[in-house]
Amino acid sequence: MGVKVYGPPTFTSTARVIAALEEMGADYEVVPIDFAAGEHKHPAHLARNPFGQVPAFEDGDLMLFESRAIARYVARKHKSSGPDLLREGNLQESAMVDLWLEVESQQYNPIISSIVYECLISPIYGGVPDRKLIDANVEKLGKLLDLYEDRLSKTKFLAGDFFSLADLNHMPYSQYFMATPHASLFESRPHVKAWWEDLSSRPAVRKTTAGMPKSG
Amino acid sequence: MGVKVYGPPTFTSTARVIAALEEMGADYEVVPIDFAAGEHKHPAHLARNPFGQVPAFEDGDLMLFESRAIARYVARKHKSSGPDLLREGNLQESAMVDLWLEVESQQYNPIISSIVYECLISPIYGGVPDRKLIDANVEKLGKLLDLYEDRLSKTKFLAGDFFSLADLNHMPYSQYFMATPHASLFESRPHVKAWWEDLSSRPAVRKTTAGMPKSG
Repeated sequence: MGVKVYGPPTFTSTARVIAALEEMGADYEVVPIDFAAGEHKHPAHLARNPFGQVPAFEDGDLMLFESRAIARYVARKHKSSGPDLLREGNLQESAMVDLWLEVESQQYNPIISSIVYECLISPIYGGVPDRKLIDANVEKLGKLLDLYEDRLSKTKFLAGDFFSLADLNHMPYSQYFMATPHASLFESRPHVKAWWEDLSSRPAVRKTTAGMPKSG
Repeated sequence: MGVKVYGPPTFTSTARVIAALEEMGADYEVVPIDFAAGEHKHPAHLARNPFGQVPAFEDGDLMLFESRAIARYVARKHKSSGPDLLREGNLQESAMVDLWLEVESQQYNPIISSIVYECLISPIYGGVPDRKLIDANVEKLGKLLDLYEDRLSKTKFLAGDFFSLADLNHMPYSQYFMATPHASLFESRPHVKAWWEDLSSRPAVRKTTAGMPKSG
């Protein structure tokens, strides 16, 4: 009854969970889900994740979905044997972790996922990238990264001078984004650039991103 | 140096924070922000919330933004004097709270906020509701509420047989939604209906929604 992660390991949401497991040094098994065969909509998978999405997560009797909730669970479960990614024992630090987790979820993700989809995913299925949508989101991302640059000029990581789940949750879409023609948005902001270099070179992250597109 | 919530108290995101404070029996002061005068983009407010959004939150030296992160902070800070809305002391229960917090954030909020915007907010500013967009989101919300109905037929609240922040975070947009012509999506699902009646009749919620639209 070990831990199982159901989903293609290169998908951003599955990668978010795998990165957390790797950071915490946890044992787990990845069970691929065949999207081409529609396996994510089969009853067996819908029993794991009623939204028909990935990942689904199994830890003994506990079944979870929603990658950000799973990552939080993994961080909490293993906090005594790995880095303290949530800081729940400290009211101020945990508040800053939660704040930047929400910035990722509410502000960063909608913008960067749209750029990645248009530039990298849509063309795979024969789609034509929506230039206007890309331009609008590139402009929004630039403004958002100005706020990140300001924040990261004051603290080494987003929530403070400590690495947290708030940093790690940014990883999957950032990894794909750096393989688009818009990577200069990171490169041109020195503190964002240094933060990404730090984040992307962590052993847990390198292992998670091994099968993903590389920048440049 | 008491707690201050900056934002119009009837705005959904501000209401999310006020509801958490009321549930926990915390003292606080609301400082209105005048959107008509553009006060949310003034330097004084940008210093509190660099996104120029509401709410912003002040607790002594701690400044926070992002309503879901603030609500979590409030729940954690006051957990010994109010209901345990996060269950962080229990690995399984906290995982289910986090899962349904993420369902609210990632699945529920984008759909219901669009319906509320088109039906109630846009007309205030002279906009014409986008019928096609409303129809598409009403259909999506129906499917999502089918999953809620299934869940709530098994447990009294979303995360289990205990009230949690996952329920409470659904409140602000649901309150507005029930004043749209689409309230039957709730009324026609007995467990969703009972859950909403429970949630909306809580003293803390009634106090928070006093200035908001009412259903029917």
